Amino acid sequence: MRNIKLTLEYDGAAFFGFQRQPGHLSVQEALENALSKFFDRKMKIASASGRTDTGVHAEGQVVNFKTDSAIPVAKIQRGLNAWLPEKLAVVAIDEVPANFHARFSAKSKTYEYLIYNARARSPLKASRVWHVDYPLDFQKMRKAARLLKGRHDFKAFCASGSSVESTVRKLKRCELKKEGNLLRLLMEADGFLYHMVRNIAGTLVECGAGKLGLEELKKILHSKDRRRAGRTAPAHALSLISVTY
Amino acid sequence: MRNIKLTLEYDGAAFFGFQRQPGHLSVQEALENALSKFFDRKMKIASASGRTDTGVHAEGQVVNFKTDSAIPVAKIQRGLNAWLPEKLAVVAIDEVPANFHARFSAKSKTYEYLIYNARARSPLKASRVWHVDYPLDFQKMRKAARLLKGRHDFKAFCASGSSVESTVRKLKRCELKKEGNLLRLLMEADGFLYHMVRNIAGTLVECGAGKLGLEELKKILHSKDRRRAGRTAPAHALSLISVTY
Repeated sequence: MRNIKLTLEYDGAAFFGFQRQPGHLSVQEALENALSKFFDRKMKIASASGRTDTGVHAEGQVVNFKTDSAIPVAKIQRGLNAWLPEKLAVVAIDEVPANFHARFSAKSKTYEYLIYNARARSPLKASRVWHVDYPLDFQKMRKAARLLKGRHDFKAFCASGSSVESTVRKLKRCELKKEGNLLRLLMEADGFLYHMVRNIAGTLVECGAGKLGLEELKKILHSKDRRRAGRTAPAHALSLISVTY
Repeated sequence: MRNIKLTLEYDGAAFFGFQRQPGHLSVQEALENALSKFFDRKMKIASASGRTDTGVHAEGQVVNFKTDSAIPVAKIQRGLNAWLPEKLAVVAIDEVPANFHARFSAKSKTYEYLIYNARARSPLKASRVWHVDYPLDFQKMRKAARLLKGRHDFKAFCASGSSVESTVRKLKRCELKKEGNLLRLLMEADGFLYHMVRNIAGTLVECGAGKLGLEELKKILHSKDRRRAGRTAPAHALSLISVTY
């Protein structure tokens, strides 16, 4: 059996999240439909690097599937892109060793969260950014982002009700960049808790708005109490940028 | 009478071009509707820097209008943005001298044309880029762009049938940048002929694809013959970035 890795780009607005669910078109269903059409038999993916929530975009989601077919990968990519809906595409394809698993083989994932900080909305950026129309202190937000970098128990930034064994994660990168009115938050970690990026983005904005001090942020992190961190920032400004193996 | 300058951002996909026309919502109509609602009387703009065609976006279109009202500009901006459709916004507002005219006072305009050069489409960029799926020689395209810079008769790149007095324009900037798969063509001129940016973009892509040599490009420019230049590139990848006064 060949093991094929697909790198997917999708517009989160066009799907009800990554994972299959009855009655709504998910990325997984759209992809498995295209795979089944192309190979002319019922196909399933073997694994995905992780789910993305409804509204969340991806520039580099990774999945893998197994096949006996001898069709060259470039031809599979072209074929799938012809069958896939417009808002979903296979942007890269590779044949990988049999033991490659899109989720368990992943070393880290990188997410990008976009904040547009200006009085007026941006019609051209609106579908991809969180518009914050009150002034934000960028330098303070950058310090807050640096403070979260490293290995911590991120329980305070994990959606309540989610059941994971450990809430300790290593945030290898937590960086805020400014490009005019656009604030680009890049986060790379060995794994992310449920809503972690969006909860951190919401909390950084509270820091930038002066509602939260850096000392308070440290206390929130150490408290492991979700109720103390900021609000969950909206999904449509989040993108899964890449998965490293 | 106060003279008010508005800088507009809009998503070209949501309107039938800038200029008013019966039966279709144009940017001008949407703006004049919002002005009329806000000032509670029939309002018209005095001038616009120029028209943009259907599908063409703007990050910095400029218009001006006259008013007797004493309302502060920040309040006018907020009010207009509340009345305007989602895909159109006033991103800056300034009170300007009585003799300011959005069209005649303009010194130069800058347009951006985006080419996405990759085998697979990009679902997240699709609405803003021209997807060219065959290989392009970036260095050759950059040379071709440089060759067009300067003061020339651009008749060969002007849509046939348009009647302007002179087809000589000074292209102050004609620059191609590469950001991964994205080619960003920036053009600044004292004025643009009808379809000029899109005709140049289409011609540069023919150079990049090897269909047209640099010597041939020079000959086309000197020929002043529209039939010899490349095809008109699609509208949805073009944006009016800024107008300089």
